[in-house]
Amino acid sequence: MKKVRIGSVGLGRLGYEHAKNIASMIPNAELGALCDVDEANLKKVANELGVSNIYIDFEKMCRRPDLDAIVIVSPSSLHPEQIKIAMENGKHVFCEKPLGVTVEACKDAEATVEAHPDLKFMLGFMRRFDPSYMNAKKRIENGDLGRIILIRGYSVDPISSIENTIAYGPHSGGQFLDMAVHDIDLIRWLTGSEPDRIWALGGCYEFEEFASWNDGDNVSCTMQLKDDTMAFIFAGRAAPHGSHVETEIIGTKGAIRISPVPTPDLNVYYDEHGVRQEAYQDFMMRWQQAYINEITEFCDCIIEDRTPPVSVYDGTATTRIAYRCKESFESGSKLLSMD
Amino acid sequence: MKKVRIGSVGLGRLGYEHAKNIASMIPNAELGALCDVDEANLKKVANELGVSNIYIDFEKMCRRPDLDAIVIVSPSSLHPEQIKIAMENGKHVFCEKPLGVTVEACKDAEATVEAHPDLKFMLGFMRRFDPSYMNAKKRIENGDLGRIILIRGYSVDPISSIENTIAYGPHSGGQFLDMAVHDIDLIRWLTGSEPDRIWALGGCYEFEEFASWNDGDNVSCTMQLKDDTMAFIFAGRAAPHGSHVETEIIGTKGAIRISPVPTPDLNVYYDEHGVRQEAYQDFMMRWQQAYINEITEFCDCIIEDRTPPVSVYDGTATTRIAYRCKESFESGSKLLSMD
Amino acid sequence: MKKVRIGSVGLGRLGYEHAKNIASMIPNAELGALCDVDEANLKKVANELGVSNIYIDFEKMCRRPDLDAIVIVSPSSLHPEQIKIAMENGKHVFCEKPLGVTVEACKDAEATVEAHPDLKFMLGFMRRFDPSYMNAKKRIENGDLGRIILIRGYSVDPISSIENTIAYGPHSGGQFLDMAVHDIDLIRWLTGSEPDRIWALGGCYEFEEFASWNDGDNVSCTMQLKDDTMAFIFAGRAAPHGSHVETEIIGTKGAIRISPVPTPDLNVYYDEHGVRQEAYQDFMMRWQQAYINEITEFCDCIIEDRTPPVSVYDGTATTRIAYRCKESFESGSKLLSMD
Amino acid sequence: MKKVRIGSVGLGRLGYEHAKNIASMIPNAELGALCDVDEANLKKVANELGVSNIYIDFEKMCRRPDLDAIVIVSPSSLHPEQIKIAMENGKHVFCEKPLGVTVEACKDAEATVEAHPDLKFMLGFMRRFDPSYMNAKKRIENGDLGRIILIRGYSVDPISSIENTIAYGPHSGGQFLDMAVHDIDLIRWLTGSEPDRIWALGGCYEFEEFASWNDGDNVSCTMQLKDDTMAFIFAGRAAPHGSHVETEIIGTKGAIRISPVPTPDLNVYYDEHGVRQEAYQDFMMRWQQAYINEITEFCDCIIEDRTPPVSVYDGTATTRIAYRCKESFESGSKLLSMD
Repeated sequence: MKKVRIGSVGLGRLGYEHAKNIASMIPNAELGALCDVDEANLKKVANELGVSNIYIDFEKMCRRPDLDAIVIVSPSSLHPEQIKIAMENGKHVFCEKPLGVTVEACKDAEATVEAHPDLKFMLGFMRRFDPSYMNAKKRIENGDLGRIILIRGYSVDPISSIENTIAYGPHSGGQFLDMAVHDIDLIRWLTGSEPDRIWALGGCYEFEEFASWNDGDNVSCTMQLKDDTMAFIFAGRAAPHGSHVETEIIGTKGAIRISPVPTPDLNVYYDEHGVRQEAYQDFMMRWQQAYINEITEFCDCIIEDRTPPVSVYDGTATTRIAYRCKESFESGSKLLSMD
Repeated sequence: MKKVRIGSVGLGRLGYEHAKNIASMIPNAELGALCDVDEANLKKVANELGVSNIYIDFEKMCRRPDLDAIVIVSPSSLHPEQIKIAMENGKHVFCEKPLGVTVEACKDAEATVEAHPDLKFMLGFMRRFDPSYMNAKKRIENGDLGRIILIRGYSVDPISSIENTIAYGPHSGGQFLDMAVHDIDLIRWLTGSEPDRIWALGGCYEFEEFASWNDGDNVSCTMQLKDDTMAFIFAGRAAPHGSHVETEIIGTKGAIRISPVPTPDLNVYYDEHGVRQEAYQDFMMRWQQAYINEITEFCDCIIEDRTPPVSVYDGTATTRIAYRCKESFESGSKLLSMD
Repeated sequence: MKKVRIGSVGLGRLGYEHAKNIASMIPNAELGALCDVDEANLKKVANELGVSNIYIDFEKMCRRPDLDAIVIVSPSSLHPEQIKIAMENGKHVFCEKPLGVTVEACKDAEATVEAHPDLKFMLGFMRRFDPSYMNAKKRIENGDLGRIILIRGYSVDPISSIENTIAYGPHSGGQFLDMAVHDIDLIRWLTGSEPDRIWALGGCYEFEEFASWNDGDNVSCTMQLKDDTMAFIFAGRAAPHGSHVETEIIGTKGAIRISPVPTPDLNVYYDEHGVRQEAYQDFMMRWQQAYINEITEFCDCIIEDRTPPVSVYDGTATTRIAYRCKESFESGSKLLSMD
Repeated sequence: MKKVRIGSVGLGRLGYEHAKNIASMIPNAELGALCDVDEANLKKVANELGVSNIYIDFEKMCRRPDLDAIVIVSPSSLHPEQIKIAMENGKHVFCEKPLGVTVEACKDAEATVEAHPDLKFMLGFMRRFDPSYMNAKKRIENGDLGRIILIRGYSVDPISSIENTIAYGPHSGGQFLDMAVHDIDLIRWLTGSEPDRIWALGGCYEFEEFASWNDGDNVSCTMQLKDDTMAFIFAGRAAPHGSHVETEIIGTKGAIRISPVPTPDLNVYYDEHGVRQEAYQDFMMRWQQAYINEITEFCDCIIEDRTPPVSVYDGTATTRIAYRCKESFESGSKLLSMD
């Protein structure tokens, strides 16, 4: 059983999740080293996960000859530079989304990847690796839906985490870059087409705080794709029922709704509130299997010498589109062309 | 448009509903007379429904030559005698369930009906006329379910009406005669077979009051039918979510659940309780269309000279089975044969 | 029981439905006369419904002193003139949607209604009278949803009726005027606000025929309302699963989906296709109760001297918005202001 | 990160699954050795999973001093003897259900376990470790359901695997021992009570083959528990829609249905079959997480020196009850007492 030996950088919430998965849940991966600037936390996690090689200095970790690949889960602004360091040290790279915080930063990452055609690079749009989405994609490719007419994507955080959401808000880049970017990726992936024109709306319907960083607590964007597919994205920060990511794909032969009821289990409750299912309260729990699957796929691509399914160009394209959405929204909802 | 002219007796809750339906919601019926022992209420309803012929004396109403049929919604113990009076006056008869409060009383009604082969008689097992049940029955007859293996029937009152339920309890005949009799009718109707052996269980899980009239707040009965179909009935008095009548029919080729979510409309709520539908709180609202349909069908049978689909023998059979269930339950849950 | 005596004009599919309802299903109405240009059909329906007063000439019917009100279900282009004739003859008027086929025609109707302040006028936006929508509206008014953020409205015809849909297409006015007008009415009714800017998209994804009358088989319109509520409308002509009208109202405190599963009964099927519910195949069956409720309400408004809940101005406003949607769509999807 | 080093015996379908999980999906376990009588398959799996220590002889594997525990997934008849061998060699034991094929065999296993109080023993009733069931159990313990009134358990194999089911049938022990034993365990676990009286029904509704080994293709058992809880079990072999395990727990304060729609993902399809979800076709996929969780818990119990949650006595009790169900069924459905 060939395993890919990985060094992972960044031990925030998602970084810790990735490290834990690599250490014990991903059959074709092993965790060879860990890096983070917070030394105390680094030691704690390394101890828990049984990793003896720890680094404050990212470049030093990348120089280890026993590592095959680097997983980057650090702050977004560091991504392009770390991709470069890792690849220059001959490592395959998996990088969490976003590729970069500006289109220019993404272009830098593109250049690095292009300079190392022998190394694998994969970007972490994990929704593509969720079993429900994988199932939907397969049916589209199978022609079960006919021609795609409309894609509707909802991504809403739960009200239960609104304090954190607001605290993190000013650093998030806004809903289009932080949240809707996943739906933008799904639209491109599911249709194989690109937005042509976009119109973004929204505002602060409950929490005025978002206005202070030019964002809304609820926003939407309608898109006309180049192949005439219609798309409607809605992103929110405070759903009463839970963490709700839903995608609907309407085709001429059938439609799929992925997660109209975003429930973590198979239970239905009959009680004083009626007949009900409970919703995820946390995105990490929602995407647990997807996070495992994407690293598994990344490792398989290395082992089997295949091109990873999410490219550096996907990163640039989604970032570019998200910025246009943001521009439309901030301009007082102008209709913008992508050209 | 030929209409059947009806005299209706009994203006309790269901009697009032039937009278109102006959007066204005049933195309092939007209309300020609009303009878009730409560004169004040009788006058009030007659005024509301625009009926000028009112009676305290049932027999007098039956003597009216302009009436084609009598609808009986009086106390159950009066049913056989009123059927007799109506038929002896040449009227077709629709009688609410139960046919009689004892098997002997049912036999008396049988004799009356047999003595008037020219008159139509129909018993009010309204569930058979509910659109969902009609749809299910059609599919069974169409062979969509293959051979029937198991029927599961739930009938549960809502906790919201527990006070009335308990107040009415001593006069109800117990859950098997009052409630489960509907499920017994469904089992016979859906399978075309008869119970062979039965085993009734249950008790007072929350409300000890029911024990004082040898009843339980929740009871069940398992049945083995003569054609080997299995059946499981559950009847309860205090569901937190609402009024819940559900029937499942499992066949070799497919299964149907009728009303696993007993909701009055098409709405789904996303709120702090999750993703939910609300349930009926009232049986009258649940069966509104069925009550209309059954009288419509009764009138059609008269107009078109057809045999009504629920016979006097259905009334005796279900009463007999319900008594056996009651006997099994009261005996400390003995397994009983129907012979 | 006071009843409103009605003369009804137009015996197409919906006209026949209204006539039948008035004749036998609506407690506070009676059918006093019928009018249609197709004499053979007129006689047939009159005979079936037991109506003896029949007219080819609409004005003659309106002159009958025994009629309280006129129900207009004739071709849309006749509506304003017939409203005028009826009112000038002192009749209350219920008129099917649309009020008129142009904004100017609607203005004519407004003038007529304003000239007869003593007569009741009501327009037939029946969705407002569907139990599910009534329930949703009540909850909004009750504050259960908090501030409304987004309304999503889908209205899709079933593929099973595509031939009729295409045959009728050139006379339909296009999807925005024919179909989306209902969603436009719902948006105005549910929010109490008006569209400010709109962007309409769509095309022919499967049936090129629609292009020949400047329509699409699937279209959408995104709206920004004056109070900043967002709205997204989708209208289609050929859903594989059935007739699907769904409305979602997302608020800060909760959301409602009205009819995400547009099923005519409470049945769930477990068979080789999985676990499934079947959908309405026909709009008439979907809105049966709403059609009854709206005429009942119209009659109640006459009897109780109340202002009907759907005004002539609602007709003009929705027509105006629908035309703007059509204009946006036909212009190659320009973003348009409503001013 | 302390890991339990495991030797696993039996590489049939479930044995392979356990081995693969231990090798790569269970953080606190490592796969130290494999044993199977089929040497070719043993070598193939060992190679795939990177295990160098392989054995035809079970006892030899148990003698390895580097192993902490043995996982037994061999044919059921071998369980008691292998438990004995493993424990006599000082190993903790996880044993797949059933504990033994007769009550006597189970008693032998009890004796072995009692003779080694210092070693952990756990039986593999995996349903208890499924997230949906764990969630339900937690709510019961929390009092959310009030007093339990009725438990309904369905366990049905899919028609898609009927050939294998029939081929395996004669060796299965019959549906009560093979399938319903899981529901029996759930009933004991969820209520904390024991059956008092049972009545088993059923037969061959489609596949006569089952009769040749005194079994039915569909069977049921109704139970009266000592604390008066009612229970109804249904087991089938050929559901058209898929692999369907459902449990309903009705309490005085609320009810839970675990898996009324046994779907592997969050997708809802809108197509020519209506609005539908697809069902699991395979029990292994259904219980994947439960299989991982149970071994994880077993290892945690060893590491933390806790008593495992499924005891050897649970194995004997369920076997005893299943035999009584079988006896009731085979006797022509006699009502039997458990005493």
